[in-house]
Amino acid sequence: MQTKTAEILCVGTELLMGNVVNTNATAIARGLAELGLNLYHQSVVGDNPGRLREAVELALSRSDLLITTGGLGPTYDDLTKETIAGCLGRGLLPHEESRRAVLEHFRRMGRAPCPNNLKQAMMPEGARVFPNRNGTAPGCAIFGAGKWEGKVAILLPGPPRECEPMFREEVMPFLQEGSDTRLVSRCLYFFGIGESALAQKLDRLMRESQNPTVAPYCKTGEVMLRVTARVGKEEDPEPVLAPALEEIRREAGEFLYGVDVGDLQTALVRALLEKGLHVAAAESCTGGLVAERITQVPGASGAFEWGAVTYSRAAKERVLGVSRETLERYGAVSPQAAAEMAAGARRASGAQIALAVTGNAGPEPSEGKEVGLVYVAVSSPALSTVRELRLPARGSDSRAFIRELAASHALRLGLEAAWAL
Amino acid sequence: MQTKTAEILCVGTELLMGNVVNTNATAIARGLAELGLNLYHQSVVGDNPGRLREAVELALSRSDLLITTGGLGPTYDDLTKETIAGCLGRGLLPHEESRRAVLEHFRRMGRAPCPNNLKQAMMPEGARVFPNRNGTAPGCAIFGAGKWEGKVAILLPGPPRECEPMFREEVMPFLQEGSDTRLVSRCLYFFGIGESALAQKLDRLMRESQNPTVAPYCKTGEVMLRVTARVGKEEDPEPVLAPALEEIRREAGEFLYGVDVGDLQTALVRALLEKGLHVAAAESCTGGLVAERITQVPGASGAFEWGAVTYSRAAKERVLGVSRETLERYGAVSPQAAAEMAAGARRASGAQIALAVTGNAGPEPSEGKEVGLVYVAVSSPALSTVRELRLPARGSDSRAFIRELAASHALRLGLEAAWAL
Repeated sequence: MQTKTAEILCVGTELLMGNVVNTNATAIARGLAELGLNLYHQSVVGDNPGRLREAVELALSRSDLLITTGGLGPTYDDLTKETIAGCLGRGLLPHEESRRAVLEHFRRMGRAPCPNNLKQAMMPEGARVFPNRNGTAPGCAIFGAGKWEGKVAILLPGPPRECEPMFREEVMPFLQEGSDTRLVSRCLYFFGIGESALAQKLDRLMRESQNPTVAPYCKTGEVMLRVTARVGKEEDPEPVLAPALEEIRREAGEFLYGVDVGDLQTALVRALLEKGLHVAAAESCTGGLVAERITQVPGASGAFEWGAVTYSRAAKERVLGVSRETLERYGAVSPQAAAEMAAGARRASGAQIALAVTGNAGPEPSEGKEVGLVYVAVSSPALSTVRELRLPARGSDSRAFIRELAASHALRLGLEAAWAL
Repeated sequence: MQTKTAEILCVGTELLMGNVVNTNATAIARGLAELGLNLYHQSVVGDNPGRLREAVELALSRSDLLITTGGLGPTYDDLTKETIAGCLGRGLLPHEESRRAVLEHFRRMGRAPCPNNLKQAMMPEGARVFPNRNGTAPGCAIFGAGKWEGKVAILLPGPPRECEPMFREEVMPFLQEGSDTRLVSRCLYFFGIGESALAQKLDRLMRESQNPTVAPYCKTGEVMLRVTARVGKEEDPEPVLAPALEEIRREAGEFLYGVDVGDLQTALVRALLEKGLHVAAAESCTGGLVAERITQVPGASGAFEWGAVTYSRAAKERVLGVSRETLERYGAVSPQAAAEMAAGARRASGAQIALAVTGNAGPEPSEGKEVGLVYVAVSSPALSTVRELRLPARGSDSRAFIRELAASHALRLGLEAAWAL
């Protein structure tokens, strides 16, 4: 299928009430950008057939492809399918495969479906149906008839854990069908450089390169660049990707910590598993966040056995063997305390690499140390060091921001130690 | 100011690219619902003056109040203010107070503003200006002239840490100006009951009550009900709130864990601080999340000193004194191991209350225990118990979901122990 302009319409009163964050729109927008489709409008309407119809007519008048989320459920206010099929001049017909899937779902749950549930097995005539592996409502692509000939509406369920996999696994391949090219992406992960500084270094590439395209995505303290090549079905993508990847490494390689790794904790756990190493964590101001992020990674148990949250001075002394003299002379927020915490965690855990974090995440200065002053330390046979961070304290969520960024710095330090071993 | 119908328009190509999640729309929608304003449409457009103008005209044609986010910055593609002022028939004039604020901001940063920065100090004629305490771009309310007489557009900056406080602190009071009533809310926090079950118990109240209104907000495993009374400026809100609060306590009091507490960890830390108690945490499958959530709360150091992440069997034995026999006979994921972890954490920490979590968060069964089987335990002088949880394992994020829910159950158990002491 070839389309030029797409548009997203999310249906749900819960979005208008501010009850849930619209992550579906973000996930779909990101996928459309990867496919190289233009997206100029996103909108939200409630579960109201009149306003839904108006929104659909407006979208079809200015876009080739409409993607909707929500309103596919079994209740009386789920009316996206009926309404949009009506707009596009398509009636609803029983869809045997969807009916079997609904019946099977209820059989497994040991309950009987009510007539409303079977409403989900009615599909617009001529529609392409997308199975739902994480719920009961199938999605579909409806092909416009009459005045909307040539337009396509794709309907997805509302719950993100149903919508996002269906979009990635079913809709994105559908949108590439009939194309004689395919998209191949590499995701490059950076830490320690902001989006604008990275964009400045790679200005020409990011603004001008058409194949591959280079698009940035940010989260706290990190930037991910997605480099996407469009190549023939059987073509090797490497020659298309290589010059851009080389330029990125040349300009910003010092900040690059991994390719297709997902995040810092996954990069760290993978590096540890590859080398048969273990890491331990001793945390004060991050309060367990370093350990929590490491253990987010499936299989982390092969690389992580032990973490300590030593929030008080007494715990730092008792659990990690930090000396009272250090705590009294330099304070708990000091490079000396951080180094002793890391050394103590390595001793107590038997891991080859130990990370430590101590600092003041706020909201108030403590022991004379300002908010945002953090020390992260690593102890390992190849690399033992302490880094001082002065993290910005502003806005209402600065405590969470400082903790998140401090944990990221610690994970980054662990990765360096793992590389060095 | 009295308005009937509001509409949200978010401006920013980063939203259309899926680069950032639109949390601003959620925060504003929630505030408008609290104020009792109708919101029928949300939309997103990129930094494109033509499409922005079309979106503004459409919004003004169907709504009384338009709230926009984004496009107030100093760069060439920040054109929300110019475009909307133009639509509403208002020119831009220098605004002395905003100019002083920009100059003061740059003086503090030790840099000189460029002419673009002073663009932010130009304001539409007759506008009400909202100061920005977390950034440089002020917001404003523009009052329509000519064909848009009576319509109002409120412009807010794009970064959430600037937008959300400005909306709460400046715009919500502005929208209530001239009203002879005020809104007073109580937030009731529930754990252990789903939104639909709670809605069933409180069906009449949630559907029919006009004053106070009762609106639910959900997050993983939790529901918050906001009960909002509209009362005269000097009127006591208690008599308006009391009957609804009583009905809620009668129907669902067993699941209510706090009023105006924010979340489980804040409720726990407050209860501990009030009674001068400490809590400790020993975690396996949650990997530090219980400690991390407790230490999210400012002032947690008065109630939390020590946590242990004992991911391996060896760590459970060494740090917590769990017996090898228990681990061998029942496994690390067992009620026996959970109880010994909690008892060991209480001994090792000296805290009055110790929490423990052990389970299988997935993705694979381990030691013959299925994904989602979790034991949470508490040890304290008044309450020592173990609870078995069978948490649903489905969807791509089930590991994170199981860990989050398991940590919530542990915090809830800690709260019970704190109440009992």
